[in-house]
Amino acid sequence: MEFKILRVNMATKECRFEEIPAQYFGLGGRGLTSTIIASEVEPTCSPLGPHNKLVFAPGLLGGTNCANSNRISVGCKSPMTGGIKEANSGGQPGGHLAQMGITALVVEDIAEDGSWYQLELTKDNAKLVPSTVNGLNNYDAVAKLTEQYGKDCSYISIGRAGEFKLTAASIAFTDRELRPARHAGRGGVGAVMGSKGLKAIIVNPEGGANHPLKNPDAFKESAKRFAKALMDHPVCGQGLPTYGTAVLINILHEAGGLPTHNFKTGRFDGHDAVSGETMNQITKERGGEGVVSHGCMTGCIMRCSGIFPDKKGKAVGKWPEYETLWAFGPNSGIDDLDMIARYDKICDDVGVDTIDVGCALALLMDAGVLKFGDAEGALQLMEEISKGSAIGRVLGCGTAVTGKVYGLRRVPVVKGQSLPAYDPRAVKGQGVTYATTPMGADHTAGYAVTANILNVGGTVDPLGKNGQIELSRNLQVATAAVDTTGLCLFVAFAVLDNPDALVAIVEMLNAKYGTSLVLDDVTSLGKKVLETEIDFNRRAGLTEAADRLPDYFSDEKFAPHNVKFDITPEDLDEVLKW
Amino acid sequence: MEFKILRVNMATKECRFEEIPAQYFGLGGRGLTSTIIASEVEPTCSPLGPHNKLVFAPGLLGGTNCANSNRISVGCKSPMTGGIKEANSGGQPGGHLAQMGITALVVEDIAEDGSWYQLELTKDNAKLVPSTVNGLNNYDAVAKLTEQYGKDCSYISIGRAGEFKLTAASIAFTDRELRPARHAGRGGVGAVMGSKGLKAIIVNPEGGANHPLKNPDAFKESAKRFAKALMDHPVCGQGLPTYGTAVLINILHEAGGLPTHNFKTGRFDGHDAVSGETMNQITKERGGEGVVSHGCMTGCIMRCSGIFPDKKGKAVGKWPEYETLWAFGPNSGIDDLDMIARYDKICDDVGVDTIDVGCALALLMDAGVLKFGDAEGALQLMEEISKGSAIGRVLGCGTAVTGKVYGLRRVPVVKGQSLPAYDPRAVKGQGVTYATTPMGADHTAGYAVTANILNVGGTVDPLGKNGQIELSRNLQVATAAVDTTGLCLFVAFAVLDNPDALVAIVEMLNAKYGTSLVLDDVTSLGKKVLETEIDFNRRAGLTEAADRLPDYFSDEKFAPHNVKFDITPEDLDEVLKW
Repeated sequence: MEFKILRVNMATKECRFEEIPAQYFGLGGRGLTSTIIASEVEPTCSPLGPHNKLVFAPGLLGGTNCANSNRISVGCKSPMTGGIKEANSGGQPGGHLAQMGITALVVEDIAEDGSWYQLELTKDNAKLVPSTVNGLNNYDAVAKLTEQYGKDCSYISIGRAGEFKLTAASIAFTDRELRPARHAGRGGVGAVMGSKGLKAIIVNPEGGANHPLKNPDAFKESAKRFAKALMDHPVCGQGLPTYGTAVLINILHEAGGLPTHNFKTGRFDGHDAVSGETMNQITKERGGEGVVSHGCMTGCIMRCSGIFPDKKGKAVGKWPEYETLWAFGPNSGIDDLDMIARYDKICDDVGVDTIDVGCALALLMDAGVLKFGDAEGALQLMEEISKGSAIGRVLGCGTAVTGKVYGLRRVPVVKGQSLPAYDPRAVKGQGVTYATTPMGADHTAGYAVTANILNVGGTVDPLGKNGQIELSRNLQVATAAVDTTGLCLFVAFAVLDNPDALVAIVEMLNAKYGTSLVLDDVTSLGKKVLETEIDFNRRAGLTEAADRLPDYFSDEKFAPHNVKFDITPEDLDEVLKW
Repeated sequence: MEFKILRVNMATKECRFEEIPAQYFGLGGRGLTSTIIASEVEPTCSPLGPHNKLVFAPGLLGGTNCANSNRISVGCKSPMTGGIKEANSGGQPGGHLAQMGITALVVEDIAEDGSWYQLELTKDNAKLVPSTVNGLNNYDAVAKLTEQYGKDCSYISIGRAGEFKLTAASIAFTDRELRPARHAGRGGVGAVMGSKGLKAIIVNPEGGANHPLKNPDAFKESAKRFAKALMDHPVCGQGLPTYGTAVLINILHEAGGLPTHNFKTGRFDGHDAVSGETMNQITKERGGEGVVSHGCMTGCIMRCSGIFPDKKGKAVGKWPEYETLWAFGPNSGIDDLDMIARYDKICDDVGVDTIDVGCALALLMDAGVLKFGDAEGALQLMEEISKGSAIGRVLGCGTAVTGKVYGLRRVPVVKGQSLPAYDPRAVKGQGVTYATTPMGADHTAGYAVTANILNVGGTVDPLGKNGQIELSRNLQVATAAVDTTGLCLFVAFAVLDNPDALVAIVEMLNAKYGTSLVLDDVTSLGKKVLETEIDFNRRAGLTEAADRLPDYFSDEKFAPHNVKFDITPEDLDEVLKW
């Protein structure tokens, strides 16, 4: 099997397969997207202009039988943060691209203003053709593409938000049932795809195959041990499959770290109504098309997703994730699971990040445009995004832009990207990650909820200052490595508690590539990726001054624990130094 | 006469006169506002939060009989650029504050959410009282305040845009006829005033007097020579009084540097209709309340403003300035002077920067929200600002936000602030200033149009690279000094061509303060001010990567001269080094 990089030039329409340059050897996923962006993109360029690039890359373990290894990374200069961006997603295209031997797809330059293309992609051929689905949102677009290209393909697409180049626009990846429900959500990667005039990518995996392995037997043995480690862990093997990520609603409420009413307090009276337990229960009760425990991609054994049924049992969309439930639920004062599932479906359809848009909705409530808890008003606003009205565009641009337009003072963003669902005052390790990750506020970049709240990988008091810097640093390094493998980040729960899980990952890499990596090499890889990203950001003009939470988190006490964010700037500046 | 700093705390409502600390001695205007902001404001603070400050300061020659010396500087951390901001204005309050011995007024902290105050200010007393004019735009607010406080006061106020904390909100200063028509326009200083809950300042100059002079005779002699130098210069003595700044429309059109249709070409077919010559002519023809040659503040002898009459001779507002005419005229494809005068009046009334909002209007045209040249549609959009609708707020936030919300690629901003009325490709010295001034794109910060176009202060080919760095550097240094004196920047035309004008300025400073400054001290002062501002910006996170024009100015040829902006980043990085 030949591995290659595919370069697609939107201006010339040239699609060129090329050998992998030496500088990109041994990289995949985030490691590869970030290295390509840092090497090939002028950091001061306009994110929506011809000099930005959009890179798709499956991970190092993509295209194998390793469990949960088929995620796909998307990289570019972010129109939201102004820095480097990697957003990754589940769904089928990651595995397909890997099996087709496409190590990276690099989209370059921009098409003529107002024209839209779709990329037809097979194992050995790529062709840009005028799009047949521009003007459609993701669900309709994918339905039409499926008619045209068939059910064996997978699809990558943007909705109207990406066409509008809104800063919170996402890129959708179809799941196993051809729903465009998995998204590279954060940082406006969908706006970059839109800026290039690329509406959709049709991935036809025909002729693809699992990657050759240098040592198939060793791989198989390690993969088996790894899968067992996942299934044996209470979070990966029980919590996530049963309740989805929504299991966290009640946990964070209990911990007093669930940001409510635009980050004003840490507990939400209506928490039960929007919890994972309730979602599980009504999914079972309503039956019909509802599904508990659903995997978003081939090879997933944790199956943390589900299908949310309406009162008649008809599928609304996927189970809303915890961050989605939080953004539209507690943070917006809405305790209606049915409505939240509808907002989530709208986000998937129009193609926007649920965190940034949900949080922007809460800002509009803070600004008095509608009242906290006004579920019907929220639905009407959400429907504006697809219409391209001024208010819809503002909302679709996310939290920072909404905060500016409505002149708000309490705008929870770092580097222009919205804080997710864990208050940085009551879950301080998470606050450290928000402030310092090169990605802008991002919970996944160094998920300190593990030791702060879940007692996974040790215990660090979430309300105290001690240990938070080191915790965030170690997690950020590990995550940068995990995001390079194509593994779902949720494997981290097992990895943090069971040393053999990480050993198994390293063994799989060695068995696949014939390398002799040791555990320390994983750390080195993670550090290298972060260094590459930080270097890009510095050249783009993002300094340590951007590694700060908004000052109101240090000014205002957060109930119920009445805590402030009190990690000093000097300490924050130590997080990503080694 | 005692000189003092007045500190007004919006949270505690305390108003405290204090002696001038040693570190602020010898400073006024921009030099003082920038030094106070750099010393007292945490550079990473939220611009609309309690840690930002808003400083008003007349200049070193304010409160004297020197011609054109009563301008007022406003300083803060800008919500638009994220860096330090000084915006200055004519009008009466600058001279009044100077005569009252108030060297700086420093507004600190923020009032309770949703409450509005006005500051009653006399020579020896200051008091915050609940505002009687919140909810009103500037013209109605000032009319009501004048009823309440009388015609001998001058007024500083924000309109609805400032109340909404829009990033292009300005602060209005009344002129001699109590029109709120002079503005500290740029960078969102009005949003900062709004964030503090300060709607208006009533400046009662009773008991104030001209400053004591160490050497009155010497001052008088130098002031006379200075005034003569102004009157003898063709721009200061003839061009400006006759046609206003609008004299530049035909000149820039001729030079091919008049940005038209959102910076697409350098000449505008309708230039004559919106020129200074036409404005002069119809002002005379229509008569009535129209005025040619009107000074915006006591002591002005250049009198570059006027009053624009409608077809029935009724005053619409002040003569639109060149940049206003350009933004709503050529750059928006509108050739209707009457309509532009109405937009200008709306800007003065609601309180927004005409450059940033006019340029944002052109972006909305580029986005297809309305057509280029649609004067009626533009009027309707302008009226939305005061209503606080989503589109009105977006427009009132200016160019960068409008560009984001509408997903545009060609967004002419540096550091988030809109480029003014001289294309950086065809007037390259101006491009250098836009890129490198700590203020964000600002023509006044280093007005290279002098040598590039007007042959004032030498001649530098506007289309070539040679000499632009040095030209911009020298002008930026000189301007930082001029902005510290309280002199109107238009004295620079005379200063650049007549060496004795600068000598006279230095002599006046010496005669007033008993100092023995020499010409080089002016340069040193300018450099010191710039260094202070750059240092603040660096600590706020603005690096040299922010000293760049958007890349499309380097990509796209600009007609009629088919030039690109080709000054290298390396050269730009040399501009403010010495």
